[in-house]
Amino acid sequence: MSGNSIGQLFKVTTFGESHGPAIGGIVDGLPPGLKLDLEQIQFELDRRKPGTSRYTTARREDDIVKILSGVFEGVSTGTSIGLLIENTDQRSQDYSAIKDLFRPGHADYTYWHKFGIRDYRGGGRSSARETAVRVAAGAIAKQYLKEKFGIEIRGYLAQLGPIKAQKLDWDQVEKNDFFCPDVDVLAQLDEYMRQLKKDGDSVGARINVVASGVPVGWGEPVFDRIDADIAHAMMSINAVKAVEIGDGFAVVEQRGSTHRDELRLTGFSANHAGGTLGGITSGQDINVSIALKPTSSISIAGKTITTSGAETEMITKGRHDPCVGIRAVPIAEAMLAIVLMDHFLRHRAQNADVMVTTPDIARQS
Amino acid sequence: MSGNSIGQLFKVTTFGESHGPAIGGIVDGLPPGLKLDLEQIQFELDRRKPGTSRYTTARREDDIVKILSGVFEGVSTGTSIGLLIENTDQRSQDYSAIKDLFRPGHADYTYWHKFGIRDYRGGGRSSARETAVRVAAGAIAKQYLKEKFGIEIRGYLAQLGPIKAQKLDWDQVEKNDFFCPDVDVLAQLDEYMRQLKKDGDSVGARINVVASGVPVGWGEPVFDRIDADIAHAMMSINAVKAVEIGDGFAVVEQRGSTHRDELRLTGFSANHAGGTLGGITSGQDINVSIALKPTSSISIAGKTITTSGAETEMITKGRHDPCVGIRAVPIAEAMLAIVLMDHFLRHRAQNADVMVTTPDIARQS
Amino acid sequence: MSGNSIGQLFKVTTFGESHGPAIGGIVDGLPPGLKLDLEQIQFELDRRKPGTSRYTTARREDDIVKILSGVFEGVSTGTSIGLLIENTDQRSQDYSAIKDLFRPGHADYTYWHKFGIRDYRGGGRSSARETAVRVAAGAIAKQYLKEKFGIEIRGYLAQLGPIKAQKLDWDQVEKNDFFCPDVDVLAQLDEYMRQLKKDGDSVGARINVVASGVPVGWGEPVFDRIDADIAHAMMSINAVKAVEIGDGFAVVEQRGSTHRDELRLTGFSANHAGGTLGGITSGQDINVSIALKPTSSISIAGKTITTSGAETEMITKGRHDPCVGIRAVPIAEAMLAIVLMDHFLRHRAQNADVMVTTPDIARQS
Amino acid sequence: MSGNSIGQLFKVTTFGESHGPAIGGIVDGLPPGLKLDLEQIQFELDRRKPGTSRYTTARREDDIVKILSGVFEGVSTGTSIGLLIENTDQRSQDYSAIKDLFRPGHADYTYWHKFGIRDYRGGGRSSARETAVRVAAGAIAKQYLKEKFGIEIRGYLAQLGPIKAQKLDWDQVEKNDFFCPDVDVLAQLDEYMRQLKKDGDSVGARINVVASGVPVGWGEPVFDRIDADIAHAMMSINAVKAVEIGDGFAVVEQRGSTHRDELRLTGFSANHAGGTLGGITSGQDINVSIALKPTSSISIAGKTITTSGAETEMITKGRHDPCVGIRAVPIAEAMLAIVLMDHFLRHRAQNADVMVTTPDIARQS
Repeated sequence: MSGNSIGQLFKVTTFGESHGPAIGGIVDGLPPGLKLDLEQIQFELDRRKPGTSRYTTARREDDIVKILSGVFEGVSTGTSIGLLIENTDQRSQDYSAIKDLFRPGHADYTYWHKFGIRDYRGGGRSSARETAVRVAAGAIAKQYLKEKFGIEIRGYLAQLGPIKAQKLDWDQVEKNDFFCPDVDVLAQLDEYMRQLKKDGDSVGARINVVASGVPVGWGEPVFDRIDADIAHAMMSINAVKAVEIGDGFAVVEQRGSTHRDELRLTGFSANHAGGTLGGITSGQDINVSIALKPTSSISIAGKTITTSGAETEMITKGRHDPCVGIRAVPIAEAMLAIVLMDHFLRHRAQNADVMVTTPDIARQS
Repeated sequence: MSGNSIGQLFKVTTFGESHGPAIGGIVDGLPPGLKLDLEQIQFELDRRKPGTSRYTTARREDDIVKILSGVFEGVSTGTSIGLLIENTDQRSQDYSAIKDLFRPGHADYTYWHKFGIRDYRGGGRSSARETAVRVAAGAIAKQYLKEKFGIEIRGYLAQLGPIKAQKLDWDQVEKNDFFCPDVDVLAQLDEYMRQLKKDGDSVGARINVVASGVPVGWGEPVFDRIDADIAHAMMSINAVKAVEIGDGFAVVEQRGSTHRDELRLTGFSANHAGGTLGGITSGQDINVSIALKPTSSISIAGKTITTSGAETEMITKGRHDPCVGIRAVPIAEAMLAIVLMDHFLRHRAQNADVMVTTPDIARQS
Repeated sequence: MSGNSIGQLFKVTTFGESHGPAIGGIVDGLPPGLKLDLEQIQFELDRRKPGTSRYTTARREDDIVKILSGVFEGVSTGTSIGLLIENTDQRSQDYSAIKDLFRPGHADYTYWHKFGIRDYRGGGRSSARETAVRVAAGAIAKQYLKEKFGIEIRGYLAQLGPIKAQKLDWDQVEKNDFFCPDVDVLAQLDEYMRQLKKDGDSVGARINVVASGVPVGWGEPVFDRIDADIAHAMMSINAVKAVEIGDGFAVVEQRGSTHRDELRLTGFSANHAGGTLGGITSGQDINVSIALKPTSSISIAGKTITTSGAETEMITKGRHDPCVGIRAVPIAEAMLAIVLMDHFLRHRAQNADVMVTTPDIARQS
Repeated sequence: MSGNSIGQLFKVTTFGESHGPAIGGIVDGLPPGLKLDLEQIQFELDRRKPGTSRYTTARREDDIVKILSGVFEGVSTGTSIGLLIENTDQRSQDYSAIKDLFRPGHADYTYWHKFGIRDYRGGGRSSARETAVRVAAGAIAKQYLKEKFGIEIRGYLAQLGPIKAQKLDWDQVEKNDFFCPDVDVLAQLDEYMRQLKKDGDSVGARINVVASGVPVGWGEPVFDRIDADIAHAMMSINAVKAVEIGDGFAVVEQRGSTHRDELRLTGFSANHAGGTLGGITSGQDINVSIALKPTSSISIAGKTITTSGAETEMITKGRHDPCVGIRAVPIAEAMLAIVLMDHFLRHRAQNADVMVTTPDIARQS
């Protein structure tokens, strides 16, 4: 209820602050019998890890995840899975400069008013550090979905500031520091990021995530449509300000005759809907697009007030990350995996008996 | 768990199909002591009601809501509130034409695969008919928020197909059939809608919703950020395909130095964030924008398949609504009210004792 | 969260006061495809109905339940089921005598302190009137469990005041007004009840409920053990003060060598456990026993205080029910059905794939 | 949903197996601003700790709890609290004797059928080892309730096998290994336990728990009555088979004129109800009594079957605990604290504004 859990049947609950001894979480609801590939979980964490690319934050964390329960002889037992990641780079910086003021664009001001106390070191609970646990939990969901249904969940950087990827070459995505699917804009991105660093400024990004191979029928009518739960999960990622499913805002100018995806036995005529009809998966690719704001931790001075109500100025010293959006790729994939896993279980609970002979046309195409 | 509830502490659960005897719901968690204005609830229902404008669906429903419990001598008692709206216009049309096929762009195909059975009359549970209950529940939330905090929740049509409202004049919104805040585009809208009707086609829309007067501190860290819950609530409305908070997708091209809202004792320098920082309200206006797809119920023939797996064509006969987006204004307002109400209670549960002397700067501006 | 719902995947939410226009509820999570027997639901309601026996309260209610949604052509669709029961016998009695005071043993005092307002007519929301909705929802669960698994859920009066049923003859239970399985004590019960009426007093009762045919494996480790959820459901019934599973309090004096039920391929050696081991069903009968307090609505004067803090006396006028425990039989059955239905779905969500070849020994016996 | 969480607003989620590297949990919902007394938490863990008394299991665990988050400079921040207890005494015993069979009276058989896989070492997740996390979480709740309301939660052994405590002297409870309030039966208990050990057998126990100083008004109508939630919490403790509130099963033979607690301005005339009316606290002591079955881990051979479906015999070797009920005292206190904490927050969410001038009469007595 205090917001540290997501999911109903595949439930992930997390804890941990940026500068505490450790972060971690509990994954509850994983079916028994899954042979867990720990290296794969660690691989996902490494993709998100600070300091991986030369553009992202210079914080160095090993982000080694320990699984403390719920797995016996390498196989899931159906009981809750305890996850632990120690914070190794929590050097006792001097936080006296920000202890008593609110960094503009950060959660400092709102946490202060909400709780009356805050762990000001690195943003405390509001830091994106907690997303490491999401990635570990999402990696477990990914494995299950892949093994049982062959579902593939992948993401990429679609736009960074003014630079857009002009083509989608999945083979490129994991080969560069930007998760960029267009090799032709890499030089531009590199140049742009260098300039940003020089300016001491930051920029936003657009990330796209795609789930392929999702069976038809997942999602619940009315409130917990799968797109509604995806929107919730995506918007819960730090810095996300917008979410689109399928054609997203482009639908405003579309006509019904264009937007509706017709049905043939060989498949749908198109995928304007982004893989969901009435909030339930259609079997087509689920297409999600999100916008991440530029980080507010920049080395350009900003005006603010103090906890005691005086006006002042502040500046973020030391290392900073000119585009937090880049690292959101594995996080967004993880969130999509968690939502799909949850909805698979919810669907199975109620509808495991349903027998339909009408073909799953998305599988025919 | 089957998706018919929303909210944690202010929980709304609904039931009802398009052509059943009645729709209704239960509002659980309203604090005791609120003097309920029933006319106001009915007024909100009338705003959403089919047949209200000459552009929306010609279905005629009185949409009279009955309150069956939870209110004693006009005042809320703190127990669950039963809501009932009878379906009066459920004339037994001939549905044999669509009984065995899936209307493109509708939930027919996905419901069929999910449940193996569907109430095909008017879309059954997937019909937007159920949003009437949301509006009734939201009207109760609106009253509480208004009385206790002076919160104002209002929405308007920002764009319909290619036509954008160029200015925001709140006084105009309730004076025209489009909830349009720009009197200068009304003629254009009228002309465009007439043409759509003639074409037998439909179009999408963008709706903006604003909550003013929300106190600082509502929303929960990490997963249940207020913006995440708003995204969930908005995307749960029929036909919604995208959600933005604050600057939304515009942040992709923004720099950190531009986006961050600086703090002065007289208020924030701007509201790029849209009223939320770290998922918690800042006291500024909450700005939400959503996109609604064009309805797929159009009188242009579309290709589809049947439940027995044959290819065919179909057409929507009789009345249809060229832009379902328009009626989404009161629905989106209702959903925002429900989310805020829920987060007020969640915040109060944990933090009712918190004392902060730092000024609520959004209230100063 | 305000206590008007029970169940996670088979969720029942109710509303309604003793003297409002109607009571009702929403059943969410019933799998699609169940052919609902409406007469059976009505039959269960009739078993609970006030005025059925000459010993229970003389309130006359038809208790006709209407199903408003979730059922199409007699078959469940998987969407939420709206239930409505009109209050027909809510004659405007004169409640001025109890309007401003707290009846001893009732919820008047605690509701007043909790909510600051109360519907004093007949106890309002705290009246056992709301259990009618439980019985309707439980009847639906019963039907599903019976059809899919052959599960039988039955209850009986084990003790009323000093009179104990000495034998368990299921054939007798539905043949007398007491749900008593021992025909030899009927005359005693009749005599005792007449005397109670004459005394203007009331008495407690013990009710036993048994579920037969439950598969092995339902229930969740640690907190949501099936016995824990049963205890919750039973203790949520008005007037219940104690719950036992299996041998219950007798285990205090048992030795481990006696209590443990040994396993043979032909079945368990006994059922001290009451059908649950480690909170998970063993396949044996689930045996539950509950105690219901004597109603406090008696015609013997009692001391109390008023809402304005003065001391006074009160007396319950008119009809009253000397043993509310009797009517608890169908209610307790309904609650057990709801819990089992919920745990079946929870179990299936996570473990639908599990294949075990070890025999279900309880089915062998 | 998989049963590893308890509470709605004060939510405790746990993980960990008997012989894994660690057990732990997350406490979500503690209000900010509580100065946590870590020694007090450790003290409660020590009370429950295996090997504390010479009668309980000889397993040696330090049970040192680490708080990994949610506390800053000794004060709760309102964010989730990560708890970790390492398993130090998980020596690699030889479990080959029980690997392929089901210990009678244990969860082995039901876990196997539910999950198709089980961590057989020491019972895995079904071991009472997990209750250590409950005690740590409960200790936090206890501190909050004590500091804010002066609530005192205490328990004691009321009966062990045939031996009953004849008087309640709170001063004695913490002075002996049995949590026994009657110094006169200590010698008897000692003698009885020695004999049990000699016999290689075990016995059940009755534990009573009392919460004093609880304000009037906590608990929710209908399903989540405070007694229903207490029953759930108590029955979720390993080995508990029965729960009573107030007079419990004695009400079966009581008359209404005896049972109802009359109200005077100086207090209630008695406390037959056990501190709850209509499921809401009355301000009187909450009295709970529970029965714990004798452990099935005894050194007397028992019949059982194997995972491959053959009949066999088994015996528990080495150390065992002749009465697991004794150690349940701190666990039951913890569970009561968790339920009260949760209901305080639930009550505050909805009813923080309620003003009642009628005196809280339980506070007068």
